[in-house]
Amino acid sequence: MAHRVTFFPGNVTTEVEEGETVLDAAVAAGVHIDASCGGAGTCGKCRVLVEGPHRPVETGADGHVLACQVIPEGELYVFVPAGREVRKGKIHAIYSNAAFEVREPLAESILVEMERPSLDDNLADLERLKCALGRPDARIALTALRRLPQTLRGSDWRAVATLARDGSAEEIIEVRPSGDVKDLGLAVDIGTTTVAIELVDLRSGKVLAQASDYNRQMVAGEDVLARIAYAEEKGQERLQDLIVGTLNGLIERLCSPTDCGASDGHGHRAEDIIALSIGANPAMVHLLLGLEPRSIRYEPYIPVVHVPPISRAMDIGLRAHPHAPVYCIPGRAAYVGGDVTADVLLSGMHLKDELALLIDVGTNGEVVLGNREWMLTCSTSAGPAFEGGEVSCGMRAMSGAIDAVRMTGGDLEFSTIDSGEPVGICGSGLIDLVAQMLLGGWIDRKGRIVADASGRRRDVDGVPSIVLHSGEEEISINEDDIANILRTKAAIYAGCSVLLDSVALDFGDVERVYIAGGFGSHIDVENAQTIGLLPDLPRERFEFIGNGSLGGARMCLLSSKARESAHSIFESLTYVDLSSSSKFFDQYSSALFLPHTDLDQFPSVRERLER
Amino acid sequence: MAHRVTFFPGNVTTEVEEGETVLDAAVAAGVHIDASCGGAGTCGKCRVLVEGPHRPVETGADGHVLACQVIPEGELYVFVPAGREVRKGKIHAIYSNAAFEVREPLAESILVEMERPSLDDNLADLERLKCALGRPDARIALTALRRLPQTLRGSDWRAVATLARDGSAEEIIEVRPSGDVKDLGLAVDIGTTTVAIELVDLRSGKVLAQASDYNRQMVAGEDVLARIAYAEEKGQERLQDLIVGTLNGLIERLCSPTDCGASDGHGHRAEDIIALSIGANPAMVHLLLGLEPRSIRYEPYIPVVHVPPISRAMDIGLRAHPHAPVYCIPGRAAYVGGDVTADVLLSGMHLKDELALLIDVGTNGEVVLGNREWMLTCSTSAGPAFEGGEVSCGMRAMSGAIDAVRMTGGDLEFSTIDSGEPVGICGSGLIDLVAQMLLGGWIDRKGRIVADASGRRRDVDGVPSIVLHSGEEEISINEDDIANILRTKAAIYAGCSVLLDSVALDFGDVERVYIAGGFGSHIDVENAQTIGLLPDLPRERFEFIGNGSLGGARMCLLSSKARESAHSIFESLTYVDLSSSSKFFDQYSSALFLPHTDLDQFPSVRERLER
Repeated sequence: MAHRVTFFPGNVTTEVEEGETVLDAAVAAGVHIDASCGGAGTCGKCRVLVEGPHRPVETGADGHVLACQVIPEGELYVFVPAGREVRKGKIHAIYSNAAFEVREPLAESILVEMERPSLDDNLADLERLKCALGRPDARIALTALRRLPQTLRGSDWRAVATLARDGSAEEIIEVRPSGDVKDLGLAVDIGTTTVAIELVDLRSGKVLAQASDYNRQMVAGEDVLARIAYAEEKGQERLQDLIVGTLNGLIERLCSPTDCGASDGHGHRAEDIIALSIGANPAMVHLLLGLEPRSIRYEPYIPVVHVPPISRAMDIGLRAHPHAPVYCIPGRAAYVGGDVTADVLLSGMHLKDELALLIDVGTNGEVVLGNREWMLTCSTSAGPAFEGGEVSCGMRAMSGAIDAVRMTGGDLEFSTIDSGEPVGICGSGLIDLVAQMLLGGWIDRKGRIVADASGRRRDVDGVPSIVLHSGEEEISINEDDIANILRTKAAIYAGCSVLLDSVALDFGDVERVYIAGGFGSHIDVENAQTIGLLPDLPRERFEFIGNGSLGGARMCLLSSKARESAHSIFESLTYVDLSSSSKFFDQYSSALFLPHTDLDQFPSVRERLER
Repeated sequence: MAHRVTFFPGNVTTEVEEGETVLDAAVAAGVHIDASCGGAGTCGKCRVLVEGPHRPVETGADGHVLACQVIPEGELYVFVPAGREVRKGKIHAIYSNAAFEVREPLAESILVEMERPSLDDNLADLERLKCALGRPDARIALTALRRLPQTLRGSDWRAVATLARDGSAEEIIEVRPSGDVKDLGLAVDIGTTTVAIELVDLRSGKVLAQASDYNRQMVAGEDVLARIAYAEEKGQERLQDLIVGTLNGLIERLCSPTDCGASDGHGHRAEDIIALSIGANPAMVHLLLGLEPRSIRYEPYIPVVHVPPISRAMDIGLRAHPHAPVYCIPGRAAYVGGDVTADVLLSGMHLKDELALLIDVGTNGEVVLGNREWMLTCSTSAGPAFEGGEVSCGMRAMSGAIDAVRMTGGDLEFSTIDSGEPVGICGSGLIDLVAQMLLGGWIDRKGRIVADASGRRRDVDGVPSIVLHSGEEEISINEDDIANILRTKAAIYAGCSVLLDSVALDFGDVERVYIAGGFGSHIDVENAQTIGLLPDLPRERFEFIGNGSLGGARMCLLSSKARESAHSIFESLTYVDLSSSSKFFDQYSSALFLPHTDLDQFPSVRERLER
């Protein structure tokens, strides 16, 4: 009996015969896995993560198995971790380059000089330290206290105390001899699909190094609901291990001096990471902290926590100082998390009088509408079309992805990331492609491919398709793909409409549109308007903020003021539940056209269509 | 080659030949160790703790070895834990029966009823709980948060939240379904020699059960300095294990339904212990928390901490709820610890206008002088004579101890605890004995035995002795013993004198004398004055407060007000260092007489002597 094997991150499926290994399947599927011993099980390089039935096999400490040793006994999902696959397809994450204020970072090391004790000045070590720090009320971790007497005497009463902050409370988590003490922090964005981190100098606020990778949890399902279902069925521990493994792998990359490029070569040490700040959706936060995500999935969609307690790296198993505080940005609702709070924080819309609309396009699409007075938010189950999911040739914005398409002289031209041989189409490429095909008359307003409109039309497996590239890999888009893209863009646009409608406002009232998310700064606004993803407003009203979750996480890492702002954003957001909204379904149905049923909402697109 | 083997708690020494076991030594020394298999190594009952060189042997998880398997290879110290030896010689600890105020105990469980969440009321679980608790700022332990969703849904939103207090901060350490939730707390006195605990109902303040045992650390040395020296040489981990083992053994006794007597038979569970409050001297606190005690021993005698941070039972390895807060009463100086703060708290001297003197006689002798305005304190290295140490027939106040002696018709009469066959003399017996011998003319004011004054005089090993009892065990006191008793009482009296002198006051100004410590309520004040241990003041000025360390620990367990008082007592105590005081040595030398060189200080004793 043959078994299906699907490889991630590529989402490539193949079949193997009974008795064949995962490595055999990888070879068959064209997925590259390092295996220098040729499958003898000796080199130990072909490490993968698997989900599904297979013959018993030895498992490494971090849950890895050797692909050459795993023999499927049913449908298997395989994650190929950071290796050539990832290096080849480096994720083009977008980071904010803004310099943020440093003011009471989440953790901070302070040089303290103390008087040497004497018979007349016989204060105990801890009280002496607190007094010199000017912090009589600071708590101290028992582990730090245990090392205190030796440290103070060994450093002749000149030491560096590391303080972790939790609201107004401070805890001394480490005391070291004065010397070359680095204060490193980590800003983290945990997306359902992608994880990005920044290593930050907590003194200057400077970003020292960046890295990103796929979320290894994808082996347990592509979207949030699939992950929760997996947790419910098999326990959330495995998913916690997978995200912790993803983060630790990234930390290792930034802190390893032998790493090729990601590190700045200064040999950072993971133990010097004294604080972590995390932007993520609620399901990701729950799975990271080991909280049961079950109730997020069922009505009335209640998370375990909105404002996660600050925990310690060691409680979660993260590679950092064991007592490093792990701060998760608070999130408003089951599907509007700290990542959205972070977007708002980074955009600054909560500080301004102007009416702003914020759209975060990820595996879900979240929308925020408002200003300094009030804010509404909702989440649309937009689907992962713009992240390369549910589209046959879709992919993330990586090397070889077609990221821009235009119609010239009656035919399509495209460019790829890093100008390489095209291997798929990423979000911005899909938007361009659909828009250009619409404007060129290759597809109609329902997204159906018009017969004989182009020489690129072909039936693939009985489905009408447009072939974009025929090389080593054929790249095409079919009507099912277009339908998925329509559903995604319709959900986002409908979400915006419902929020506006609920306060009796119109798209025309929106003074500023912030676009957040991994693909955010790459998309062509005119094309996005042409397909009806973005409202038909003047170009200057749009602002791309990039990965808001990561940028907001960095802000919170560096400043107590930012953390306070994040908390007040969380408090002022009003959640609008679309799942029970009939208006949403009306709006959604109307938006399942290119650009929309109601062309009056898209005058400039109408003009272009009529040209 | 023969090896010396000393058994604790009895402090009995014997010798074994090369190749003989500890069990052989116990048999030779008359120390009872359970060994139903007769030394075959099969019954596993003869578990002991050993210190010193021996042939390799299998060690149990808690550091125990089987006496029948241990073959000494040098001088060996053996501790025989709770078994028949201890049951036979139950420690007569003195507890305060006062009912203390219950107000914000160290931990508290609160019943919470919540509204069931809905689409319109979609607060997350934690925020819902905090809101219902009325504690928006409470922190929560990650472990409790992980269990929260199941607990709330399983109990239909009616649950019991357990809060631990740390100053004004509160942390939710547990959430359980409503039902039969007990709030148990543990008050603990860790003495250098003896450990006593009380299991307390945190709601009513009622003491449910009590137990006491020897501090297993005695295998590593009798007094604080010996323990610190041991820690310095061999690491403090072993000493931490020994005290944690002592405490866990006691907790097990109180929480085991099969225990014979100590438990109240209600089958308390160790996991229901949600808070622990500890009174102990600084060395004991350091060793319990795993803090290096080294600097306590050397000038300028600086502890690691005066105000120990509240830690968790699991951080220390105590058998209780893993997150139960462990509060240690703050102590003023290296040799004036939380036990003394607790004495003051229990006495109430810090609240009154009257000038009070507080004397705690333990392995050290600590003195506090003052009132609500000011307090001075000092520690005298009095030695353990009144605890049975350094006296040939001395013992703790246990069954069979001679606890009272009087001279009738020219000869001595005595009584024993539990009216059993006498096995030794405890502190109160020693005071009586020396006083009565002095008044009877059997010894002179230098403590030398007067020739031919009694028929009980005999030379034992060339040292003049008085034989008190010749039975199965001969009980006697010799001139060396009396000299040790003199040194102890002189140190305590001199300490009091120095404190009074430093504020230009006199014993006559003292309106109240509080006597704390294990033997406190048993001693005869007149006899104690006769030997010059207590000042010559009217009887009604003396008040016995029993085990102040334990009583104070219970107060702090039950009330935040008591914990605040303990903190302000700690802050208002001024430490007087006697080690550098020439006045102390003068006073000490003058007090090395019975009752004192200056008989004017003891007019009533002079009268009795002249009678």
